[in-house]
Amino acid sequence: MKVGILGIGLIGGSLALSARKHIPDVEIYGLDQNEDHLDRSLVIKLIDFKLNDADLKLMDLLLIAIPVDAASKQIVSLLDEVHDNGLVIDFGSTKAAICDRVALHPKRGQFLATHPIAGTEFSGPDAAMENLFLNKTQILCETQNTRPDLLEWAENWFRKMGMQIRPMDPVEHDQHIAYVSHLSHISSFMLGKTVVEKEKNEKTIFEMAGSGFESTVRLAKSSPDMWIPIFNQNKDNILETLSEYINNLNQFKNLLEANDYDKLYEQIGEINGIREILEGINKTSKH
Amino acid sequence: MKVGILGIGLIGGSLALSARKHIPDVEIYGLDQNEDHLDRSLVIKLIDFKLNDADLKLMDLLLIAIPVDAASKQIVSLLDEVHDNGLVIDFGSTKAAICDRVALHPKRGQFLATHPIAGTEFSGPDAAMENLFLNKTQILCETQNTRPDLLEWAENWFRKMGMQIRPMDPVEHDQHIAYVSHLSHISSFMLGKTVVEKEKNEKTIFEMAGSGFESTVRLAKSSPDMWIPIFNQNKDNILETLSEYINNLNQFKNLLEANDYDKLYEQIGEINGIREILEGINKTSKH
Repeated sequence: MKVGILGIGLIGGSLALSARKHIPDVEIYGLDQNEDHLDRSLVIKLIDFKLNDADLKLMDLLLIAIPVDAASKQIVSLLDEVHDNGLVIDFGSTKAAICDRVALHPKRGQFLATHPIAGTEFSGPDAAMENLFLNKTQILCETQNTRPDLLEWAENWFRKMGMQIRPMDPVEHDQHIAYVSHLSHISSFMLGKTVVEKEKNEKTIFEMAGSGFESTVRLAKSSPDMWIPIFNQNKDNILETLSEYINNLNQFKNLLEANDYDKLYEQIGEINGIREILEGINKTSKH
Repeated sequence: MKVGILGIGLIGGSLALSARKHIPDVEIYGLDQNEDHLDRSLVIKLIDFKLNDADLKLMDLLLIAIPVDAASKQIVSLLDEVHDNGLVIDFGSTKAAICDRVALHPKRGQFLATHPIAGTEFSGPDAAMENLFLNKTQILCETQNTRPDLLEWAENWFRKMGMQIRPMDPVEHDQHIAYVSHLSHISSFMLGKTVVEKEKNEKTIFEMAGSGFESTVRLAKSSPDMWIPIFNQNKDNILETLSEYINNLNQFKNLLEANDYDKLYEQIGEINGIREILEGINKTSKH
């Protein structure tokens, strides 16, 4: 089976490792805008060959793991190229735009929109991990529009990787993910900005910052190449979550200015309920 | 040597373990407002005895690991009680208020204000860890006002625990710590609030939240008993950092509304510089 991967970074590289492990007689072709990354992925054997435009029609499986704006731009021509039994799977962090783009494509049945809830703050082929997808949720959108035989094959592969499959409407996906992922990234980026602007003396940050600071700014290391297109594509939902977050921060500030510590105490007691939610996440990811 | 510990939680309990390990012939007396915690700390042998008011004058070392408002209230009478060669050490997250409170006390030389940059989001005696302080920074304030023989003893003990000692002015401490610790906690509390208010269906959070969300809201599990007094005592510095954070979030929002993705890209590229800062933190904490 010939597998073509667009984007050999954290996700694409980890998909290459999963394909190597779970797909018999696999040949992996890769493409990356960054020539150094592409060469590196050949050296560390994530891929077997570079993927040329002329090879596209030979691929049985095309995996799209590039920034979401590039994915939306290229999806139509990729579907045009793919042979009649090939499957094109997208792995981006936004789902409504790409589902919209392919809605009327004659080969719509050969497309599957997914979002694996898996990642780290690192990027590039060396960030690839064989177990990145183990015990993670794999969101599938508009499965009714994917050809049943191709859908079944894909679901089997995801299950072999140890993923839990969760069907979801693409518009709902983009709303929810703005809260539980995109907002976390913005809060972390801006926290990093605020501290670095103020604390010009980095030595003081080194010495005074503990694990709490590290934990909250970890995501501020994430690449703008991935995130700016996400902010663009999910702009409306992100603006809504961001407004609510800023409102909550302003409310906290007002309560602090008014010395209303009773109300702040009550609020934080309620927020502590997140403990059970986080335990739920861990429980989910252990099964 | 008789050691009295006020507050047998994460910090006080870990200090008990460190005292047991590094102080010869130690007898540990403990006090906690929470009777269950106090009983538990006897059961798991963090402490040897309960500390009664009448015992205070017998203690050679008094360690204060209670919320910062209670510490400021009690410090004067604790110094009043301690015998002429006893040392009282405070371990709270704010330093200006308590240093102010004892400035004119006749036994000022028997007091040492510290802030160990160490902790987790857990609390209570079972959260105590023998290695909590290993490779962590220990900030000491106004060391010139502590009796040299007592200061030397304390510094030796901290070094035995594996801590790096860093003298700092208490007012400067409170300014810096607002950025690298207190703001992280507020950003995390409010992120938790925003997501939980919106995502009433917890199952969706469980399934869609990845490690990024977990990392940014981890601190939202922190206890209000500890944090409300900190917000109160460091109010002015926190309001300043919080205003800057909210400004940065509003600026991000404005750029997103204006579709100024070039500027956002540039900003996030700069913020990625936090990578080196975080590596610095890890490097520091490994030595």
